[in-house]
Amino acid sequence: MRTVEVIRTIAAVREWHRAAGDVGLVPTMGALHGGHRGLAERAAREGTAIASIFVNPTQFGPNEDYRTYPRAESADLELLAAAGCAAVFVPTVEEMYPPGDDTRVVPGDVASRLEGAARPGHFAGVCTVVAKLFGIVRPARAYFSHKDFQQLRVIQTMVRDLAMGIRVVPFEIVREPDGLARSSRNAYLTPDERRRAVALSRGLFAARDEWARGTRDAARLRATVRVVASDAGTPEYVSVADPVTLREIDGHAERAVVSLACRVGRARLIDNVLLGMSLEELARL
Amino acid sequence: MRTVEVIRTIAAVREWHRAAGDVGLVPTMGALHGGHRGLAERAAREGTAIASIFVNPTQFGPNEDYRTYPRAESADLELLAAAGCAAVFVPTVEEMYPPGDDTRVVPGDVASRLEGAARPGHFAGVCTVVAKLFGIVRPARAYFSHKDFQQLRVIQTMVRDLAMGIRVVPFEIVREPDGLARSSRNAYLTPDERRRAVALSRGLFAARDEWARGTRDAARLRATVRVVASDAGTPEYVSVADPVTLREIDGHAERAVVSLACRVGRARLIDNVLLGMSLEELARL
Repeated sequence: MRTVEVIRTIAAVREWHRAAGDVGLVPTMGALHGGHRGLAERAAREGTAIASIFVNPTQFGPNEDYRTYPRAESADLELLAAAGCAAVFVPTVEEMYPPGDDTRVVPGDVASRLEGAARPGHFAGVCTVVAKLFGIVRPARAYFSHKDFQQLRVIQTMVRDLAMGIRVVPFEIVREPDGLARSSRNAYLTPDERRRAVALSRGLFAARDEWARGTRDAARLRATVRVVASDAGTPEYVSVADPVTLREIDGHAERAVVSLACRVGRARLIDNVLLGMSLEELARL
Repeated sequence: MRTVEVIRTIAAVREWHRAAGDVGLVPTMGALHGGHRGLAERAAREGTAIASIFVNPTQFGPNEDYRTYPRAESADLELLAAAGCAAVFVPTVEEMYPPGDDTRVVPGDVASRLEGAARPGHFAGVCTVVAKLFGIVRPARAYFSHKDFQQLRVIQTMVRDLAMGIRVVPFEIVREPDGLARSSRNAYLTPDERRRAVALSRGLFAARDEWARGTRDAARLRATVRVVASDAGTPEYVSVADPVTLREIDGHAERAVVSLACRVGRARLIDNVLLGMSLEELARL
């Protein structure tokens, strides 16, 4: 049986890195599912893979689910071992944020809308912890699902702006058989909410189908998503935005990321589809 | 005659680094003087040394001297070659801040007082450009004079908080024979202002002498500096602060950085003396 080396301190990661050489990092908050498995398998195929498991307090708002976010370390370690990861970094909050820690990496325009507007400070928390993880692990490659599409663009922009010299690898969204995007927060759903939640991906797929039939009008695509997704609840936002800038598109959309956020029971779920742009093109930004 | 390799693009630095291996970085804004020479010589003694010359626009306020800051590239290259630097990175503003660049590294409490209070945004500009330089050069060591004492502490804190894994090496202040701290901005002084400016270091030395005679009262040390330095002008601030936190000391000072900022003609000059703490102790923070 494969095993994964569990590392709990920054000093031990640096030690491990000296022997490992060129590595790929899969940053996670744990409670791993098939989406993470895909990321970890890809990282392992492309070199020595290290994952991190850290529920990062600075990216949660005061009324968000930091305390209740699911934790499942032993199952996570099994999944990462099976996926071929060589190591996993599982720090404490004190290891990542020692007393007096207060430097922050603050993203710019690309972080200002959508999730950035809905969750003030969220992306500064994300950038700060990812910058720390990059400093600790010094990966050549880092793997992110485009399920958190704006997060992926924020990280790509940080890596470019701070000249970090790391290749950010976007990975496809892994979905349940009925289309619901895999998410650790799906665990919050009751059976009834789980049935309703599928309307979110159905709404996005309806927009994708319309796009395939030639529709390019952003307002019409948004309306389609809203109608279909309403079976799950009233979305916080439905967006048809430019995939590079995340700016909302008025009128004709030659390429777009169609995204939404919606509360279903106590879960706040997000999902998106990328239209007119491939993951390979996204990777080259 | 020694020469220094001049590198103007990020891509070329990365290429150079692959061959150079473990390097030490001396970040500068150019217009180099004996203080920089000391830093560069130390970096060259301890390994392969690369300097950078970049007048960083984001650390200047709107009414500061960004446009008039002295530039002297050819003399700078001679000095760096003579000091034993292997290479120097001299980027354009567009190379460091391409269109759309807007991620910022924002320091916390240690940056909030003194220069941080006098120059809003200054240290975010410093942290951002130094983080970029670290990302580009990936140095094992980086050399900073303690002439900009708070800057040194801000950089040390950033390196710790973002787990950059770089050794920050503090270097002594290099002074003119009469005691004035070497600074590129001394070039702004008229002969009369130059004569008056020496009162700044004299004020700090007077406090150091009092300390040596046993005075530990922060208010008395501040008063001594003010009296002696007044021959140069009215300081913007005279500070007796803890060298680690930069918090102003009330009462008994067991260790301190005594610092001031003062406008002399069109030059804004800063200087400091470190009491009760060695540079070696500072390096270990």
